[in-house]
Amino acid sequence: MKKRVYSFEEGRAEQRKLLGGKGANLAEMTRIGLPVPPGITVTTETCLDYYNEGKKLPAGLADEIRAGIEKLEEKLGKKFGDPENPLLLSVRSGAAISMPGMMDTILNLGLNDKSRDGLAQLTQDRRFANDCYRRFIQMFGDVVMGVPFGDFEKALEELKEKVGVQEDTDLTADDLDVLIGQFKELYTRGTGEEFPQDPFEQLLLAVEAVFASWNTDRAIVYRRVHRIPDDLGTAVNIQTMVFGNMGDDCGTGVAFTRNPATGAKEIYGEYLINAQGEDVVAGIRTPKDISGLKEEMPEVYQEFVEVCHRLDDHYRDLQDIEFTIEKGTLYILQTRSGKRTAAAAVKIATDLVKEGKLTPEEAVMRIDAQQLDQLMHPSLDPEAKVKVLAKGLPASPGAAVGKVVFSADTAEELGKKGEKVLLVRPETTPDDIHGIVMAQAILTSRGGMTSHAAVVARGMGKPCICGCEALRIDLAAKEFVVDGITVKEGDVLTLDGSTGRVMLGEAQLISPELGTEFQTILKWADDIRRLDIRTNADTPEDASRAREFGAQGIGLCRTEHMFMAPGRLPLAQEMILATNEEERRLALEKLLPMQQEDFYGILKAMHDLPVTIRLLDPPLHEFLPNLEELQVEITRLEMAGDNAEELAEKSKVLGTVRNLSEFNPMLGHRGCRLGITFPEIYEMQAKAIFSAVADLVKEGVNVLPEVMIPLVGHPKELEPLREMVINTAEEIKEKENVDFDYLVGTMIELPRACIVADEIAQHADFFSFGTNDLTQTTFGFSRDDAEGKFMHHYLQKKILEENPFAVLDVAGVGKLVEQAVKLGRAAKPELHIGICGEHGGEPKSIAFCHQAGLDYVSCSPFRVPIARLAAAQATISERK
Amino acid sequence: MKKRVYSFEEGRAEQRKLLGGKGANLAEMTRIGLPVPPGITVTTETCLDYYNEGKKLPAGLADEIRAGIEKLEEKLGKKFGDPENPLLLSVRSGAAISMPGMMDTILNLGLNDKSRDGLAQLTQDRRFANDCYRRFIQMFGDVVMGVPFGDFEKALEELKEKVGVQEDTDLTADDLDVLIGQFKELYTRGTGEEFPQDPFEQLLLAVEAVFASWNTDRAIVYRRVHRIPDDLGTAVNIQTMVFGNMGDDCGTGVAFTRNPATGAKEIYGEYLINAQGEDVVAGIRTPKDISGLKEEMPEVYQEFVEVCHRLDDHYRDLQDIEFTIEKGTLYILQTRSGKRTAAAAVKIATDLVKEGKLTPEEAVMRIDAQQLDQLMHPSLDPEAKVKVLAKGLPASPGAAVGKVVFSADTAEELGKKGEKVLLVRPETTPDDIHGIVMAQAILTSRGGMTSHAAVVARGMGKPCICGCEALRIDLAAKEFVVDGITVKEGDVLTLDGSTGRVMLGEAQLISPELGTEFQTILKWADDIRRLDIRTNADTPEDASRAREFGAQGIGLCRTEHMFMAPGRLPLAQEMILATNEEERRLALEKLLPMQQEDFYGILKAMHDLPVTIRLLDPPLHEFLPNLEELQVEITRLEMAGDNAEELAEKSKVLGTVRNLSEFNPMLGHRGCRLGITFPEIYEMQAKAIFSAVADLVKEGVNVLPEVMIPLVGHPKELEPLREMVINTAEEIKEKENVDFDYLVGTMIELPRACIVADEIAQHADFFSFGTNDLTQTTFGFSRDDAEGKFMHHYLQKKILEENPFAVLDVAGVGKLVEQAVKLGRAAKPELHIGICGEHGGEPKSIAFCHQAGLDYVSCSPFRVPIARLAAAQATISERK
Repeated sequence: MKKRVYSFEEGRAEQRKLLGGKGANLAEMTRIGLPVPPGITVTTETCLDYYNEGKKLPAGLADEIRAGIEKLEEKLGKKFGDPENPLLLSVRSGAAISMPGMMDTILNLGLNDKSRDGLAQLTQDRRFANDCYRRFIQMFGDVVMGVPFGDFEKALEELKEKVGVQEDTDLTADDLDVLIGQFKELYTRGTGEEFPQDPFEQLLLAVEAVFASWNTDRAIVYRRVHRIPDDLGTAVNIQTMVFGNMGDDCGTGVAFTRNPATGAKEIYGEYLINAQGEDVVAGIRTPKDISGLKEEMPEVYQEFVEVCHRLDDHYRDLQDIEFTIEKGTLYILQTRSGKRTAAAAVKIATDLVKEGKLTPEEAVMRIDAQQLDQLMHPSLDPEAKVKVLAKGLPASPGAAVGKVVFSADTAEELGKKGEKVLLVRPETTPDDIHGIVMAQAILTSRGGMTSHAAVVARGMGKPCICGCEALRIDLAAKEFVVDGITVKEGDVLTLDGSTGRVMLGEAQLISPELGTEFQTILKWADDIRRLDIRTNADTPEDASRAREFGAQGIGLCRTEHMFMAPGRLPLAQEMILATNEEERRLALEKLLPMQQEDFYGILKAMHDLPVTIRLLDPPLHEFLPNLEELQVEITRLEMAGDNAEELAEKSKVLGTVRNLSEFNPMLGHRGCRLGITFPEIYEMQAKAIFSAVADLVKEGVNVLPEVMIPLVGHPKELEPLREMVINTAEEIKEKENVDFDYLVGTMIELPRACIVADEIAQHADFFSFGTNDLTQTTFGFSRDDAEGKFMHHYLQKKILEENPFAVLDVAGVGKLVEQAVKLGRAAKPELHIGICGEHGGEPKSIAFCHQAGLDYVSCSPFRVPIARLAAAQATISERK
Repeated sequence: MKKRVYSFEEGRAEQRKLLGGKGANLAEMTRIGLPVPPGITVTTETCLDYYNEGKKLPAGLADEIRAGIEKLEEKLGKKFGDPENPLLLSVRSGAAISMPGMMDTILNLGLNDKSRDGLAQLTQDRRFANDCYRRFIQMFGDVVMGVPFGDFEKALEELKEKVGVQEDTDLTADDLDVLIGQFKELYTRGTGEEFPQDPFEQLLLAVEAVFASWNTDRAIVYRRVHRIPDDLGTAVNIQTMVFGNMGDDCGTGVAFTRNPATGAKEIYGEYLINAQGEDVVAGIRTPKDISGLKEEMPEVYQEFVEVCHRLDDHYRDLQDIEFTIEKGTLYILQTRSGKRTAAAAVKIATDLVKEGKLTPEEAVMRIDAQQLDQLMHPSLDPEAKVKVLAKGLPASPGAAVGKVVFSADTAEELGKKGEKVLLVRPETTPDDIHGIVMAQAILTSRGGMTSHAAVVARGMGKPCICGCEALRIDLAAKEFVVDGITVKEGDVLTLDGSTGRVMLGEAQLISPELGTEFQTILKWADDIRRLDIRTNADTPEDASRAREFGAQGIGLCRTEHMFMAPGRLPLAQEMILATNEEERRLALEKLLPMQQEDFYGILKAMHDLPVTIRLLDPPLHEFLPNLEELQVEITRLEMAGDNAEELAEKSKVLGTVRNLSEFNPMLGHRGCRLGITFPEIYEMQAKAIFSAVADLVKEGVNVLPEVMIPLVGHPKELEPLREMVINTAEEIKEKENVDFDYLVGTMIELPRACIVADEIAQHADFFSFGTNDLTQTTFGFSRDDAEGKFMHHYLQKKILEENPFAVLDVAGVGKLVEQAVKLGRAAKPELHIGICGEHGGEPKSIAFCHQAGLDYVSCSPFRVPIARLAAAQATISERK
C-alpha cells in the first residue's frame, strides 16, 4: 500500500512533487534543524486519488492521518481535542508549484467547546481562546462548509456596534462568547448541521476541503494563466499551531531573503505584533517593515536574520519565509522560492553567480523568460510633467496609462475590447483574477507589498501600487476621492509601479533599456544559445531599436504598412482601382520611389545583418473603404438625391470594393496569389528593393537582402515569382553596375506547403514559418473570429490547454513544422529556416523551434531579449 | 543515337506512346495488310526534344527524314518535287491520346510550280493540279506560317465574284492560275518571304509547325479539359497523298465500325464524292450517309465493310476510320478507337463481352467512368407538350434547357455566373472550346455527326444538335430565324440531343434511369469493387433515388437544409436571436418535432442501410438576413423617419447579425464549435434523431443511424459531444423501451484532425473525410474566392494541373488523408472510414480513396453509378 502521510522528519526538499512545495520545504527545514512546528503532510497522490475515486477520501487515509496525529500528540505531550492541553493544528494546501492565495487555509483546527476551555486555561487568557475559537468557526464555516464569510463578518460588526467598540481587539472574552454562539447558529443555519465538536471529524473535513479547493474556478483560472498542469494535485500540510496573537510578545510576519522588487541582498519583509499570519497576507492591517522588529525584539530579530541567511544559502535562491513569534520564540512556518520582479530575478541571478553559488548556466535557467517582458515595459518619462494625486507602495514596477475601472468584471469586459484599463480596488482577492489579467495595472488602497494584489501583479509582470491609503474608494458610486479630487470610472490615470505614484491624466512613458545585469545575463545566454534571434520590423526606427536589444537581423519586414501610410494610400487605391494593367503600372510607377526609400532606410539601419522583406501579402480590398459603410453612404446620397457626381464616383468605388470583397479573405486572393495574377505589383517591389540595395552598395554599406514570397502552397507558385525576383536583381546589377548577394525564399504558412516542402525547397533559399496563418489553417480557426467567439469557451472548458495563437500548438501545428523542416532539409541541406510568426517571441514556442532544428526565430523588438534568454534555456534543457 | 523516324512497316499498335495513336495505328494497319498509303512517322520523343532544345529541330532529324522520304520515293517510283511524277505528302500530328480537331494538318505537301505541272500531266487534269496547289499554298500559309486563312478566302471570294461563279468547283484551271499568283503574293506579304519551292524545306517547316501546334492555347485548353498530360508530345505522320478529289470516281469519308451514339453494331459514317478529307470533318459541305456508297460504288463499299469488320475485330473496339477513294481504289488513312457517347460505350462493352471478345473485367475498364455522367443527365419527358421549331442531327444525346447565346465568350461569361446557356453557332471551331465547356448544350446549323461540335460535345457528354439547316443565324444581330419565328439572345430553348429536336421554351425534363446494359456493367463492377458506395442525400426523395442507383447507404445527410426550409427559417432565427439559453431552448423545442420528422423519413427510406447524419455545421449567421442589405434598409428607414417601430426591430436584428458576422466564416464559429458553445442545439438534434429511430424500431424497421460531428480538430472537441450523443441515445432507449445500434463518429476535414487522427479515433466509431473543407484549409483556399478570383488563372498558367476542388489533390490533401487513415487505424483497427466530400463522385479521386484503403465513398445520387464503376476500375488497376 502506498504511503500517504509523511511526518516532517521523513521528507526532503526533492520530494516536491509528492509532498508539494510547502510540505517538501517544511520537511527540509526540519531536516536542517530550523525551528519548525512539527507536523505531517498528506501526499499529492492522495489528492489525485480523491478525484479518481469520485471525490472520496481513499480508504485507509483516515487511519494513516490518525496515526500521524498520534505521533504529534506523543511528541508534544498534547492531545487533540483535550480539555486541558489541546493540540491545535493548521491545515494548508501545498501544490508542487506555488499558487499563492489560490488555496484555502484553516487555522486553530482542533478547537471545540472543551478544548477552547483548555486553551484558555493553558494560556491563562480566556479572551484569546475565545477569539481563536470564533475565528476557527468562521474560517471552517467559510472555507470547509461554504457558509458565507460575510454573514460572520456582519454578525461581528453588529456586535461591535452593539457594545460600542471600534476594533475587534476591543471585544471582551464575554463579548466573544456571545459571538461564538451566534457563529454556531450561522453555521447550523448554513449547513443544516451542528458545528462539529469531534476534532478528528474537523480534520478530515478540512483535508477534503483542501482537495476540493484544487478545482475551484479561481484555482483553474490561476493555473491557466500560469500554465500549470491540472494533474499535479495538492498536498495537505497539517502542522502544530503556534500563536502570534497571544499578546505583545507575539507576532507574525513574512519576509524575503532578498528584495523581491529590486533583487538587492537585504532582508525585506513585514510583520504585525499580536496577529495571526492571515492578517499580514490579507492586507487588512497594514504591517510594519521588518526592520522595526530589530528594535521591538532584538534577539528574535537576530535569530531570524540568521535563519534567513541559512535558508538563502541552503536553497541558493531568494526565499519567501513565513514566521511566527509565540511568546518570544521564533517559529518558521514556511519557506519557498520567492516570487520576484524580472529586474530582481536578473539581479539575484547575477549576484548568485558573483557570490559563487551558481554557474552562469544555472543563472540563465533561474530566470523566467516570459517574465522578462516586464523589463521591456515602458516606464515613466522622468521629464514628464505629472500631477501626482497620491503615493502608495511600489508593489510591482513599470508604468501604465489607462481608464479607471472598479470591478474585475468591468476590467475584463473593456479589456477584451482592447481598451486599456487600470483596476482600482480597496484590495484584491483571488476572485478578481480575471480582471487583473485584463488590466494594465492594479491600484489598491489597502494591503502591503505581500498582499494578494502585489504578489499576483508581480507574477504577471504588471505594474501595481498597493496600500495607497489616501484613496477613498466608493465602489457603488464607481469613483474614488483623493485630496478633494474625484476620479470616476473611465477617467484616465497614469500609475508608476516603480515609485508608487498615482498621476492624473496620461503621462509620457518611455521605452525600456537593458540594464547592466540584464546585459550580463543575455551575454551568458548568447554564449549558450544555438538559435539566432531576429526581429519583425517594418521601419528603420524599429529596426534600430531591435538591434540595440540584440537582434541579429530582420526576420520579417512587412511591406503592406508602407502602402497604408496616409500619403500613399491614395496611390495604392489608384493602383487597385485601375481597370487594366497599363493604368496599374502607372500607379505602381508612382509608388516605386517611395517603396525604394522605405527599403533604403531599413536596409541601412540593418547594415551587415540579413533583412527578410516579404512582398505584398494582404488582399487588395484591405486598402479600400469598408463595403458596408460605403453602401450606407451611397444609400444616403441616393435618398438625398442632390449630388449625382459624388454618387457616381462612390458607386464606381463600390463596384470595385464589391468585386474585390471576399467570403473568407484570409483564404482569398492574397499573398503570392496577388503576385501571380498581378505580376506588376511584385515586380515593382523587387525593383524597389534592389534599387535601394544598389544605392547602398554604392555608398559602401554592406546589405544582405532576403526576398520572401508569402502564402506559397505549391512549388509552381514559387517558381515563376522567384525567377522574376532573380531577373529583376540581375537587371539592376547590370544597369547600376554593382554586385550584391541576395536570397529568395518563402513563407511556410499553409499545411500544403509543409507537406510538399521538399518540392518547394527546390525553389527557395530559405523557409520562414508563418505560424500565425499556419495555426489558422491547421486548426481551421480564423484568429479574429475564434478569439472573438469561442476561444474563451475552449480555454475555460479545457478543450484547449492554451491559446494556440499565443503558444505554438506542438501536437498539431508543430508536427507540420517538423515535417517541413525534415523534407526541406532532405531536399536542400543548406536550406536556412526560421520562424516569423508571433510565436517567435514566446519562450515555450522558442524551445520548440530549437528542438525542431530551426536556424532562427524572429519576434517583435521588445521580445528580442526574451527570445535570447529562452533560446539559451532551450539549449541547456536539451543537454539535460 | 535514338531512332527518330519509323516507316509504317516498322511500327506496331503497341508503340502508341512513341509513334502517337495515329502513327501506331497506321503501322498496325500496314502490318495486317490493309490498303494504307505508305509513309513515315517522326516520334513523339522528337517533339519533346524540340521543346527541350528551345524549339529547334534536333540535329540529324532532317537527314533521317530525308532517308525515310527516299525509301518512299523508291517504293512508289515517284520523286519529291518531281516535275513529272511528283511524290505528294500529307503531314499530320498524332499524339498518344487523340485530340480531334486540335492539331493542324497539311495536305499536298511537295507541290511547287514544277511539281504542280507534273501532277497536271500525271492526272491529265490541269484544273485539279491547280486546285491542289492553291489549297496547299493556303493551308501551308495559314497553318505553318500564320498567314490569316481569311485573307486567302477573301481573295477566292473576290475572284469568284469577278468571274461570276457561285461554287469553287466552277472556277477554271486558268482562274486558279490567277488565284495561285494572288495566294503567293498574300504569302509573301504575310511572311516576308517567297513561297518555298523546295519541297524538303516545306516538309521541315511543316514538321516544326506540327510540333509548335502541341502548345497552342487551344491544345492546352483541350488537354486541360480532358486531363491529358502536357509532357506526351505529338508525333508527325508523313504519308503519301491519295486524292479523293480527282473526279467522281473519287471520294473521301469517315466511318465508325459501330454506331458511336447508340453503340449498335452497324457501320455508321459519312462520305463526300470528289472531296478531300478536310471537307467532311470541317462540316462545310453536308456529307451523305455511308449507306449511299453501297449504291454509288458497290465494290468499294463491300471492300470497306470488310475492312471495318477486320479493324473492329482486330482492335476489339469501335474504330473511327478515315478513308479515301482515289479513282475507284480504297485507301485507309487512319483508324483509331472511336469517341462514343456513354450509352454507346456501355452497349459496345456489353456487346463485346457477348461476342466473346472481352472479359467482363475488360469491359468494365473500357468505359470512361467520368463520361457516364451523361447517362445520368435528364432527358425530355415524353409527355411534355413541346413546340418543335426545327430538327437537326442528333449528334450527342441528352436534353437541356437554357438561354440562347451566340458566342463562346458570352457562353463562358454567363456560364460562370451560373446561368444555363445553349451555345448556338453556324459551326464550331477549336477556338470555341471555352464556350462549349460552359454551355449546357450545343446547336449548329451546319456540319454532320462528325463535325467539330458533334465530336467535342460527345466527348464532354453534353447534348448536341448539328446541321440544323433550317436555322438562319445572324451572329451580328444575335438572333436566328426559323420558320418565321425569331429567337434572340437570352430566349429560352429546349434541345434534345437524342432526337435532334429544337424546342421553344422550357420543356419538362425527366430524370435518368439505368438501362439494362448499364445495369449489367454495374453488376460486373459491383462484383469487382472493394469500396462501398454511399450517397449524400438530405431528403427521403434523394435517398430513394440514390438507392435505385445502387447506393449502399447515406454517407452524408446534412441537417442545415432542414433549418433553411421556408416554414422553419423563422424558428431557426428565433433560436439564433434568443438572448439566453432558456429562450434558445424554447425555440429548439419547436424545431425538435420537425427535425424528428425529417430523420424519420430519411431513415425509413434507407432502412437496412447505414445513414450518416451530420449535426449542424454552418455558422449561425447564414440563417439571418444579409448584413449589408439590412444596413441599407435601416439607413433608408432612418432617412425616411416615419416608421420607428420597424426601424427598432430591424436595428435589433442588425445587432445580432453584426455580432454573429465573421471575418472568415469558413474558419469561424461553426461545426462542433457550435455544439460546444451552444450544447442545446446538438442535444435537440440528437434527441430528434434517436426519437425517430425509436419510432421506426417500434414499427419494425431496421435502421442504422450514424451520428457525425463536424469540424473536429482536437480530440477534446469530440469527447464531450460524443458523450452527449451517447447519453441522449441511452436516455431515449430507456424512455421508449426500445433497443437499437448506432455509431458516433466525426468528419475529418481539418489538417489538424489528420495529424492527431490517432487521438481523435479514440472517440470515434468512424471517420468521414470532408475533402471540400480539407482542401480549403490545406491549400488555404476559400473555394468561393479562389474559383471567383484566381483559380482560372492558376489552371491557365499551369500552376495547378487540376482544380483541387474537382479532383482530389493527391500530393497535398491526399497525404493528409493517408496519414489520417494510417493513424486512425493504428489506434483503432476497426475504425470505419469514408469520404463525403464532392471528390467522392470523381473517378480519379475514387481511385485514390481505394488506394488509401477507405471503406466507402459517398457522392450525389446521380454520381452513384459512376462511383460504382470507378471503384471497380480502381480495384482492377491495382491488381495490374
